[in-house]
Amino acid sequence: MAVPASRSTVRALRALQKCTQQTVRVAPRARYIPQHVRAFTLSTRRHEDHSEPGHDVKYTTDLYPEIKRDPKFSELTQEHVDFFKKTLSDESAVIDGLSKDATDDIEPFNRDWMKKFRGRTKIVLKPKNAEEVSKILKYCNDNMLAVVPQGGNSGLVGGSVPVFDEVVINLTRMNKIRGFDDVSGILVADAGVIMEVADNYLKEHGHVYPLDLGAKGSAQIGGNVAANAGGLRFLRYGSLHGNVLGLEVVLPDGTIVDDLSKLRKNNTGYDLKQLFIGAEGTIGIITGVSLQTPQRAKAVNVAYFGLESYEKVQKAFKEAKMRLGEILSAFELMDAESQKFVHNKTQMKRPLEGEYPFYCLVETSGSNGEHDNEKLEAFLEHVMGEEIVTDGVVAQDDTQIAELWSWREGITEAIGHNGGTYKYDLSIPIKDLYQLVEDTRERLNSKNLIGDNKTALGVVGFGHMGDANLHLNIPVRQYDKEVEEALEPWVYEWIQKRNGSISAEHGLGIVKKKYIGYSKSPVMIELMKQIKQLYDPKGIMMPYKYI
Amino acid sequence: MAVPASRSTVRALRALQKCTQQTVRVAPRARYIPQHVRAFTLSTRRHEDHSEPGHDVKYTTDLYPEIKRDPKFSELTQEHVDFFKKTLSDESAVIDGLSKDATDDIEPFNRDWMKKFRGRTKIVLKPKNAEEVSKILKYCNDNMLAVVPQGGNSGLVGGSVPVFDEVVINLTRMNKIRGFDDVSGILVADAGVIMEVADNYLKEHGHVYPLDLGAKGSAQIGGNVAANAGGLRFLRYGSLHGNVLGLEVVLPDGTIVDDLSKLRKNNTGYDLKQLFIGAEGTIGIITGVSLQTPQRAKAVNVAYFGLESYEKVQKAFKEAKMRLGEILSAFELMDAESQKFVHNKTQMKRPLEGEYPFYCLVETSGSNGEHDNEKLEAFLEHVMGEEIVTDGVVAQDDTQIAELWSWREGITEAIGHNGGTYKYDLSIPIKDLYQLVEDTRERLNSKNLIGDNKTALGVVGFGHMGDANLHLNIPVRQYDKEVEEALEPWVYEWIQKRNGSISAEHGLGIVKKKYIGYSKSPVMIELMKQIKQLYDPKGIMMPYKYI
Repeated sequence: MAVPASRSTVRALRALQKCTQQTVRVAPRARYIPQHVRAFTLSTRRHEDHSEPGHDVKYTTDLYPEIKRDPKFSELTQEHVDFFKKTLSDESAVIDGLSKDATDDIEPFNRDWMKKFRGRTKIVLKPKNAEEVSKILKYCNDNMLAVVPQGGNSGLVGGSVPVFDEVVINLTRMNKIRGFDDVSGILVADAGVIMEVADNYLKEHGHVYPLDLGAKGSAQIGGNVAANAGGLRFLRYGSLHGNVLGLEVVLPDGTIVDDLSKLRKNNTGYDLKQLFIGAEGTIGIITGVSLQTPQRAKAVNVAYFGLESYEKVQKAFKEAKMRLGEILSAFELMDAESQKFVHNKTQMKRPLEGEYPFYCLVETSGSNGEHDNEKLEAFLEHVMGEEIVTDGVVAQDDTQIAELWSWREGITEAIGHNGGTYKYDLSIPIKDLYQLVEDTRERLNSKNLIGDNKTALGVVGFGHMGDANLHLNIPVRQYDKEVEEALEPWVYEWIQKRNGSISAEHGLGIVKKKYIGYSKSPVMIELMKQIKQLYDPKGIMMPYKYI
Repeated sequence: MAVPASRSTVRALRALQKCTQQTVRVAPRARYIPQHVRAFTLSTRRHEDHSEPGHDVKYTTDLYPEIKRDPKFSELTQEHVDFFKKTLSDESAVIDGLSKDATDDIEPFNRDWMKKFRGRTKIVLKPKNAEEVSKILKYCNDNMLAVVPQGGNSGLVGGSVPVFDEVVINLTRMNKIRGFDDVSGILVADAGVIMEVADNYLKEHGHVYPLDLGAKGSAQIGGNVAANAGGLRFLRYGSLHGNVLGLEVVLPDGTIVDDLSKLRKNNTGYDLKQLFIGAEGTIGIITGVSLQTPQRAKAVNVAYFGLESYEKVQKAFKEAKMRLGEILSAFELMDAESQKFVHNKTQMKRPLEGEYPFYCLVETSGSNGEHDNEKLEAFLEHVMGEEIVTDGVVAQDDTQIAELWSWREGITEAIGHNGGTYKYDLSIPIKDLYQLVEDTRERLNSKNLIGDNKTALGVVGFGHMGDANLHLNIPVRQYDKEVEEALEPWVYEWIQKRNGSISAEHGLGIVKKKYIGYSKSPVMIELMKQIKQLYDPKGIMMPYKYI
């Protein structure tokens, strides 16, 4: 168990730091490999996984029967295939699904890691560079072949797999780090470089990839940018809109846009690259990325608190920002129910003795461990002295850091073993953040849908407090029309009233396409359609998705 | 004098920190009020200033005789004026230059603070809110009246004043702070709020405006965003593309785009607001801004070093990033010539005993002064022990901080008193940054244009090393065709070869419009023109400028 830091003992914290620890049953590095990610990592061995009996995946069109194939798109012919084979430098870069014996090879690219979406593409192309992407796209545009760009295929909204027979352009072979300047910290890389590969490379140079995601073992840099991924380091290093310095993009008509600037400052015209950050591949394919990377922190500390109210959580967050300042790297919120689920599932000893309505996990990352410890202790002393936080523990080593993180990162797994989960990834102004969980709980209670013998097992709230990003999860014994109707569109309406976002970090893809109106005004949607029309007038990119 | 930290004494630094200081002739807070800014601040009293005899300003069209008024634009009539008077809530919100007695009132809005640009507008409109801006723009668009949005009028490229008779829409009356959430640190404000007003407001709440500029007493938030201003806090808090969370913008046709999100994360479609950041008012008028603001640092330290080579400057920067990490807030470069000019002008005692080819100013800002001191000392000890830095001093109080900053911020003033200065605001990959200064020096030398009795007094290099942003300045006894021809387009070609930016932070305006091709490819320029065409098909916004 980590060192208790209850009110009476907080002053002795420093002395206690060397005391003997009980061993806790938690795998080292569990922080980075929660169950859903482990499952995901395995799923990169796609072919084997998906051929398992009893694990077949329904077609996306079964899930969305209202989506019809747009007849304006051509169907793949042998002539098309021959062109692609001739065009790509390496014949193995074309997986040809027209020939019968390639069906097994092509199937993994039709499916997403969650085994939730499944398309029917007949061809996968793996270009080696922007020029090849350009030739492919020009040909597809000229011949009305619909296209889906595919990176690590680790998205959560069904964006990276085809719906019907779209041509899959997979970026995996574009996996070179093009350059790194260790004075400026600027990395230039192919879009297909895997996050973890980039981060390991940067680690050797004392830098860090400015994003951290569960899926980092598969997700690619280009996909991160296309999805405007958020993740665990967002609070500290901010948005990709600030960190991406330049992009190389191929437009649907084959135009290569070389805006791969290696400059932090460049005020020479509209910052067009920004449009492609978060565009989910709908207006072009990102083939190269120039990225500002921060120094790697030498010291990491993690603390875990119990708090009596959401008001106190907000106070604690404010104090953390003030007292931890520049070293604060995560402030995560978990409610009582979320921790109950983790406890029931893992049977791990709880980090704190008592139970509380709210828990927070605070992480610091800095260049001087001693200084960071002192700041964290001073912060703890203050929030406990002021009774903002009722009890708390501080991890003493990497194992304990992983243990404490597992109480946050284990939630998804712990609640996912009951039949199903209604999941919402929302952003709401901080003061209203938790109200949604309470309102949802009340709503399901009033409809008698929640409890021991009811469909819903509970209403769970957790998320990236520092980014005002709430994950609202409702675990159910089985998916149920009545629960669904109680939740939707009610949740989206609730968000809309508070000017929140119905997709904080997961994007639109196919899942959220129809709900965009809850977060964006008709004027904004019209302006977005203009941009789509401008860059992809024939609509070949990512049809049936986004907008 | 600040405490010397030469190699032999660095270990005693801590003990020395209390020793008696000589008084230095430098105004307290000089950091924030260098001469050119003081001049600028005074110029907000525009009418009085500009009516002084002998200070009359030439028309912009005298400077750029090749720019002709576009006859597609209507000339202002009484009917137009009557519409505006009827439309704006307050009659004093219309300064009507058609009537003779308003000429004096209108003249200040025709001129920029540098007294370099002068237009001939006949009307200035001061709307109170987005709805009024919308009515004005719709009318101008319908009636082909050209428009110039005007904020604090503190730009450096002639963007904020009319060239001919464009209608000036001045945002000064939109000066309300709309809201601040002290948990999230998110500020929402009218575009016309002055930076310093915003920063003072934020100071009361323990936060800080994420930009710092010399012109902060006049520059407005909306202008900052429209210009994508960089400034002194860029190294620490990053780009406005990361810090701006939402915008309220009025398009040329009067459409009000309400994208004033108060969310850090919102992945629901193209991030259109990004287009308006740095668009310099060419595709719409920003009327409201939602901004992420960081915690205010409690402690600030400043050190000043002498170094033997540019290679060592790069090493020192790398070490500063590594050892000062999260508290590094500025790393400024000044070459020997720049410091010689400051010394000759001010006769201040130099901070260091010897003279060096390069000087750096390092600033730290953190939440714990004691920790920051320790980090700075450890950094100093290392860079001096390794002979990366030859000598250095650390400021002991606010006066000394201001003194040290004056050696950096006083450069512009010191070199500006000789007749004129050729100025370039450039961004270049860090390793090449100073080479341009040396090459320029060699070029002017080889042409016999530099020296005691020559036109050019020297070639001076300084700037925001942390952002790879070089200010190349060539002070001259008088502006001279031969020097100009030696410099241009040679400097721009030099930049182009290294994929640098010809405008790192000042933007395009009227000054850099014709040089954009040196920093952007024909493809990029074509794509930019598409955006301009999309949002402003009649071309009423900022004609003659940007693109």
